[in-house]
Amino acid sequence: MSEYIAPCDCRRAFISGFDGSAGTAIITEQKAAMWTDGRYFLQAAQQIDSNWTLMKMGLKDTPTQEDWLVSVLPEGSKVGVDPFIIPADQWKRISKALKSAGHVLVPVKENLIDAIWMDRPQRPCKPLMTLDLSYTGIGWKEKIAALRAKMVERKVLWLVVTALDEVSWLFNLRGSDVEYNPVFFAYAVIGTDTIRLFISGDRMADPSTREHLLLDSSLEAEFKIQVVPYESVLMELQAICVGLSPKEKVWLSDKASYALTEAIPKAHRYLTPCTPICIAKAVKNAAETEGMRRAHIKDAVALCELFNWLEKEVPKGSVTEISAADKAEEFRSQQNDFVDLSFATISSTGPNGAIIHYKPVPETNRALSGNEIYLLDSGAQYKDGTTDVTRTMHFGTPSAYEKECFTYVLKGHIAVSAAIFPNGTKGHLLDSFARSALWDCGLDYLHGTGHGVGCFLNVHEGPCGISYKTFADEPLEAGMIVSDEPGYYEDESFGIRIENVVLVIPAKTKYNFSNRGSLTFEPLTLVPIQTKMISVPLLTQKEVREVVDGGEQTHSEGPKDLVS
Amino acid sequence: MSEYIAPCDCRRAFISGFDGSAGTAIITEQKAAMWTDGRYFLQAAQQIDSNWTLMKMGLKDTPTQEDWLVSVLPEGSKVGVDPFIIPADQWKRISKALKSAGHVLVPVKENLIDAIWMDRPQRPCKPLMTLDLSYTGIGWKEKIAALRAKMVERKVLWLVVTALDEVSWLFNLRGSDVEYNPVFFAYAVIGTDTIRLFISGDRMADPSTREHLLLDSSLEAEFKIQVVPYESVLMELQAICVGLSPKEKVWLSDKASYALTEAIPKAHRYLTPCTPICIAKAVKNAAETEGMRRAHIKDAVALCELFNWLEKEVPKGSVTEISAADKAEEFRSQQNDFVDLSFATISSTGPNGAIIHYKPVPETNRALSGNEIYLLDSGAQYKDGTTDVTRTMHFGTPSAYEKECFTYVLKGHIAVSAAIFPNGTKGHLLDSFARSALWDCGLDYLHGTGHGVGCFLNVHEGPCGISYKTFADEPLEAGMIVSDEPGYYEDESFGIRIENVVLVIPAKTKYNFSNRGSLTFEPLTLVPIQTKMISVPLLTQKEVREVVDGGEQTHSEGPKDLVS
Repeated sequence: MSEYIAPCDCRRAFISGFDGSAGTAIITEQKAAMWTDGRYFLQAAQQIDSNWTLMKMGLKDTPTQEDWLVSVLPEGSKVGVDPFIIPADQWKRISKALKSAGHVLVPVKENLIDAIWMDRPQRPCKPLMTLDLSYTGIGWKEKIAALRAKMVERKVLWLVVTALDEVSWLFNLRGSDVEYNPVFFAYAVIGTDTIRLFISGDRMADPSTREHLLLDSSLEAEFKIQVVPYESVLMELQAICVGLSPKEKVWLSDKASYALTEAIPKAHRYLTPCTPICIAKAVKNAAETEGMRRAHIKDAVALCELFNWLEKEVPKGSVTEISAADKAEEFRSQQNDFVDLSFATISSTGPNGAIIHYKPVPETNRALSGNEIYLLDSGAQYKDGTTDVTRTMHFGTPSAYEKECFTYVLKGHIAVSAAIFPNGTKGHLLDSFARSALWDCGLDYLHGTGHGVGCFLNVHEGPCGISYKTFADEPLEAGMIVSDEPGYYEDESFGIRIENVVLVIPAKTKYNFSNRGSLTFEPLTLVPIQTKMISVPLLTQKEVREVVDGGEQTHSEGPKDLVS
Repeated sequence: MSEYIAPCDCRRAFISGFDGSAGTAIITEQKAAMWTDGRYFLQAAQQIDSNWTLMKMGLKDTPTQEDWLVSVLPEGSKVGVDPFIIPADQWKRISKALKSAGHVLVPVKENLIDAIWMDRPQRPCKPLMTLDLSYTGIGWKEKIAALRAKMVERKVLWLVVTALDEVSWLFNLRGSDVEYNPVFFAYAVIGTDTIRLFISGDRMADPSTREHLLLDSSLEAEFKIQVVPYESVLMELQAICVGLSPKEKVWLSDKASYALTEAIPKAHRYLTPCTPICIAKAVKNAAETEGMRRAHIKDAVALCELFNWLEKEVPKGSVTEISAADKAEEFRSQQNDFVDLSFATISSTGPNGAIIHYKPVPETNRALSGNEIYLLDSGAQYKDGTTDVTRTMHFGTPSAYEKECFTYVLKGHIAVSAAIFPNGTKGHLLDSFARSALWDCGLDYLHGTGHGVGCFLNVHEGPCGISYKTFADEPLEAGMIVSDEPGYYEDESFGIRIENVVLVIPAKTKYNFSNRGSLTFEPLTLVPIQTKMISVPLLTQKEVREVVDGGEQTHSEGPKDLVS
């Protein structure tokens, strides 16, 4: 159920060929349909064959999964789903809709894809990395203690940690079981005086891990970690629930799997849209913020080296999308504390840029040239922080139209970055600021404007974001880190996106209504924006100042000082 | 369950003293609590006594009704509610929360307030008014036919019409059972070949009503209206449901009362957030749009007369909030086809202006003067349309700070009014445009930015609006009419609001992404904005052009040409 998954879990890609990061395949005896969102409309259409119907989510006429099922199923059908890979809330919604139409949703014991997937890879079980206080700012015992205080506040006895990045954050451990996300397969169950860590293999044999988790130390009983096999989580959770008195509650995310949710009897469930770990993890402490700043300086150095190399090499005609992505990785890997990329590099030129989450492969690989726009969306995992940056550039002379579109996107990017808003504001209220300049000319883009970013953790994390979709996001708080990435895409022609990672900080305002306080953003990303793409007359003086110096100077030195 | 209610239904005002248009009283054996929103924080605090706890909705620490109940109730409590005055979705939410805490929500047979309300007024039963095609554009038979087409589309056999304005709109009838809203107490149940109208008294004895509804004409059977007593709706609905075959559905708004919803067995219910009437009513046809334009011209004439009168009379010191409101009504009532006001006039000067939905009464009545800001939010029902306009003015010299705040509000008003946005955009995505200039200076206002406006119907109507609250609003469509009314309020000091009624119209844009088309607003309100309140240097050239001529001119003639 994670965004990035191990090869053994890529069941949708196995059955359909579509390997984007978001999508749901539903197969009936007669039909097969694939739901995905605007980022993947083109990619999915290219990867699935004519047996599949592509369901473009977010368009007016696209049916929901449950509506489609009801429309195609014969009377009294059973719909099966693996209960470990469907969130309980989604189960409930689909189950209800099917039931009211005379069908039934059933959990399947053995995953039906696994039954026909002969060469399915093994589940990874890679070594762990421990993070000391200089990176995390807070020790794991302190985190557990703070968590228990939240549990007391909500009157719950147990908390089940199911999200991989939450387990990693809680114990100040990192892994590499999943590509790009420095996490490991594990669950945790925290009681008021017990800690259970469900993890496979012999990973707890490593002396530095044992020392980090104080497994061999004499320790207050409530901080003793019991290490339990990964697969036993369902049975252990059921055993815990058997011992509960009436009114005793178990806290679980409402996004946890149906299997785990059902293991807790309804009367004992305490479900919330996000766990206390999710919020604590989102608000970065001083050590994490400083780490993120260092990571972004290193990342900018690597990308400046890349841009310099591209400017020299592209005119020779030998640089391709793949070799440019490789070179970016090479420069990043030379930086201190580099661990991995934070996601598959989107290196796309010309029409490939219109595929929003494009990943170059040999069949689509295209040479960079002086004739078309190049879009690079890339990032890295450093031991001190995670980066995610998109720049769009031209190695020849961009057309007036390309510059115009780029400038509208830039205006949207600046509008979000410079926005001042009251404490308590949810990110979705800022989304339209990113679109206003595009809307004025009849343009738009079919994705959200920003996502939360982890600190040496998942490059996409909750619970905050900036999107026209009003998911249950938490209000933005000082210390949260999100991306600001409006774009504009023309099918079969080009793609433009400008993305910074920005830190939520308190804003000084002239007045202070209701003593609420205000917030704004500080860009962490330090990678230059190519000035030749900007149509300066379309910018206001205020926007020019934002580009030049983040709005800190009162008087602009004029467009000629734009960074290049 | 309507916003404006008859005196016999003002049970919350009877029990608590608080008579604002929105609020919920909950009384336990030991406590009493009143939930209301930001428009009424001050008014409610003034009207309720110390027995009551004021629950300020929308503030972070305010508990929901169900959370509060759970926190104060003794174990195993019963909570009673009149099932005719609670929407089914709200019942479900509260019932679920109470149940999971060991309590139970029960429908009470006799309303408990009525049991102690000795001098409760009679339910009104006033004469009806018929509207011909020149006002409605579409005859009621055509409306019924279109409705039945929607019912066929959704495969439902019956539709229950519960909202009073939907019944009025459907039959092209108006009433005056409720103050300000030209509606009458009625239900309708539309079958595939039957029409039942539930209405009390001898109102169908009137010859013009009989003729309008063709009650005595020989008519296709499917347009014969059966007139049934108002009180029999529950029994009739139950009888209809008894005759249903499996899979036959009855369409009902999910905002209908628990009592009516429960009358339909679950398997036969087809609930949607808005009925097809609600959407059809919101998208005004050419006759309605023209009517609204005429109404707004008349309304502007009346207010210009008022402003002229105020400028002469206020310096004499004899004008009060009440007499100004009365004078506004006098000028409006001289206009052709005037029927009533569309809501209680908000006429407030100085500190009273900070009470967002203030209504002057003798105890609070204040004289208008040259020393403080005057806010007038008023509107009328004309036979051709409904108006709602707010202007904020000063009869002396406004302070620099007052002008500054006014100008931020004006900038927000212009930002919404001039916004261009794609077809399919929901109104809540425009809300932040109204706040951006205020936010930049640390200011804000605690109410939404706009509401739908009926055509000689309710001044507040669904299903669209402009609000930071993301209620299930429908996308804005050309022909919809909403208000644009940002504000700024300082407790005990002053209130500022600038409100126009605006029509959603197609926008011409330079490009047309995905062939979606764009929309913008055209102001229907023609009442001048007082230029002395504007701090012109705070406006951009583009904003000045919007004030002068609705943005149609390319070059501004400069601030000196602002209307006055």
